Amino acid sequence: MTAAPDTGSGTGLTTQAEDMLQRFRAGDMRALGRLLTLVENQHAQAGVALARLYPLAGQAYRVGFTGAPGAGKSTLVSRVAGAWVGAGHAVAVLAMDPTSPFTGGALLGDRIRFQSPPAGQDAKPVFFRSAASRGHTGGLAKTTEEMSVVLDAFGYERLLIESVGVGQVGLDIAEACDTTVVVLVPESGDDIQALKAGLLEIADILVVNKCDRPGARALMMQLQEALHYRTHAQKGNWQVEVLMTCGHTGEGLEELVAQVERHRAHLLEHVGGEQIRRARLRRALLNLVREELRVAAAEAFAAGRMPDGHALEPLLEQVLGGQRDPFALARDTVRRLFAQGDT
Amino acid sequence: MTAAPDTGSGTGLTTQAEDMLQRFRAGDMRALGRLLTLVENQHAQAGVALARLYPLAGQAYRVGFTGAPGAGKSTLVSRVAGAWVGAGHAVAVLAMDPTSPFTGGALLGDRIRFQSPPAGQDAKPVFFRSAASRGHTGGLAKTTEEMSVVLDAFGYERLLIESVGVGQVGLDIAEACDTTVVVLVPESGDDIQALKAGLLEIADILVVNKCDRPGARALMMQLQEALHYRTHAQKGNWQVEVLMTCGHTGEGLEELVAQVERHRAHLLEHVGGEQIRRARLRRALLNLVREELRVAAAEAFAAGRMPDGHALEPLLEQVLGGQRDPFALARDTVRRLFAQGDT
Repeated sequence: MTAAPDTGSGTGLTTQAEDMLQRFRAGDMRALGRLLTLVENQHAQAGVALARLYPLAGQAYRVGFTGAPGAGKSTLVSRVAGAWVGAGHAVAVLAMDPTSPFTGGALLGDRIRFQSPPAGQDAKPVFFRSAASRGHTGGLAKTTEEMSVVLDAFGYERLLIESVGVGQVGLDIAEACDTTVVVLVPESGDDIQALKAGLLEIADILVVNKCDRPGARALMMQLQEALHYRTHAQKGNWQVEVLMTCGHTGEGLEELVAQVERHRAHLLEHVGGEQIRRARLRRALLNLVREELRVAAAEAFAAGRMPDGHALEPLLEQVLGGQRDPFALARDTVRRLFAQGDT
Repeated sequence: MTAAPDTGSGTGLTTQAEDMLQRFRAGDMRALGRLLTLVENQHAQAGVALARLYPLAGQAYRVGFTGAPGAGKSTLVSRVAGAWVGAGHAVAVLAMDPTSPFTGGALLGDRIRFQSPPAGQDAKPVFFRSAASRGHTGGLAKTTEEMSVVLDAFGYERLLIESVGVGQVGLDIAEACDTTVVVLVPESGDDIQALKAGLLEIADILVVNKCDRPGARALMMQLQEALHYRTHAQKGNWQVEVLMTCGHTGEGLEELVAQVERHRAHLLEHVGGEQIRRARLRRALLNLVREELRVAAAEAFAAGRMPDGHALEPLLEQVLGGQRDPFALARDTVRRLFAQGDT
């Protein structure tokens, strides 16, 4: 079960970390929490632990919720989590959103009623974790992937990942999920803008939340029209539907839970468990590579070099002197670097 | 004035684009708007136009405002813009925030009173541009840099750039500015989290906005304490202050405008105009390189390759078979690629 010929920097675990990993494998919740903290803080031991745990992961089904801050994602997530726990699944929630109201395992203003499993059932309570602070240091998609692997390896069968749909990071997180739910609200012109620019492409399920607000019907119709023009190929002929929900009254939530299940069943039937896992890994690996490229580029700059090893200062001189433009310089450098790799 | 030996893909401008560029140089506002749209849409002609315009840019002073959605950044930005216009500067505002209330040149709920310059003055009105939609397709930092260069080349002397402080992109945008204002509000535990994780490092000025709310004083004191432990070296011995503002009553706004001026004067005196420009370019170039790396990695994956040219499928097999972990794989691949460049 020990893995990875190339664990990179750290060569092994400290005795303390080895101990924690053993307790983690025995199902100790405190060990889980501690490992997640190591991962979130990008502790040196986290990489080694992840390499060891990775072979245990791969079974958890991931559902991502993305949307603007204030769209009501957390309420929807907590309801889906509740339904799953009721159905006997082991469920974990990762809130990768600095504006998420999940704090310390509770949803503000809507205390979670299903924290204790239903009487007479053997279900675990929902595990909540918020990793908001990483949003400001970058690497959010990488951290999400790593924390998901930890939760997966611990034995959670279903992961709910909430990400704020602002910027590329939100999209990356959503893309690393098997089912992506895009949550929109009426009365926000930005939503239609957003759809034009990418959210429509990643959505497996579209939700118009706060559907008691004026404009909900109009938004739904705009979305349906937009979907009409969309190519279905990349979604394996899955038909994206627009659902109307109201997190507070509960309207449409059962249908949302059912639709998530339908998408999962569709993927299992048309794609298959092995291919789902492979596609997820492929997307995750792209995210990880991009994050490493980000870090490596910053390190190269800090050392006074471009990524291809050229000294930075003479190039800055040329740009400041008007002999080069920085846009072409960046483009050409990266193309050269990747072309080198091709040979 | 025609520039750049290596304009990359596009070799020249269409007659139409050439025409637009000529009108742009003559100060035609419609040509400015059209060029910004080309840039925002990453139109093929935009790259060529940017290479031509770059030598005209470099004079505009950039002030970035970053903070959580709803922190009141737009109100602060509009007040600073107003003060500058009153002082006779040519001012442009770029709102790179999908949740920004700037739309079509107006600030919702607070119609901008300084849209027309004060009577008897020759000042241009403030130019507003929102580029929210790019937030969902990535490349926001690159688009910001490109649009800033366009506005700079057009002759705007001061740029105000509003970015949502969620995720790395917000930080990148702020970093590409000369003066960075971080806006926080009381009653948000996330803010302190955020500070721990990076915002404190990039702030030249810290603002506690909505200071009539409970907790404002406590937040200010926490921030001051946090600043106490901060190293000042990277800010050129500039003393970061915490200001209290209330966008709606106007409290503290004059002081904010004055503090921005003080930071600018400090940089000019201690760093110098040429070094300010060089440092800005260096940060911008890093952002551009990172964006190109992002795109190139996605292209490599789409072609079935890792960035170093290795076929993707056998590697995925190894990971799925438990012989490799994806975290180490991503790290080692990128390290190898950058090391190649070193030789």
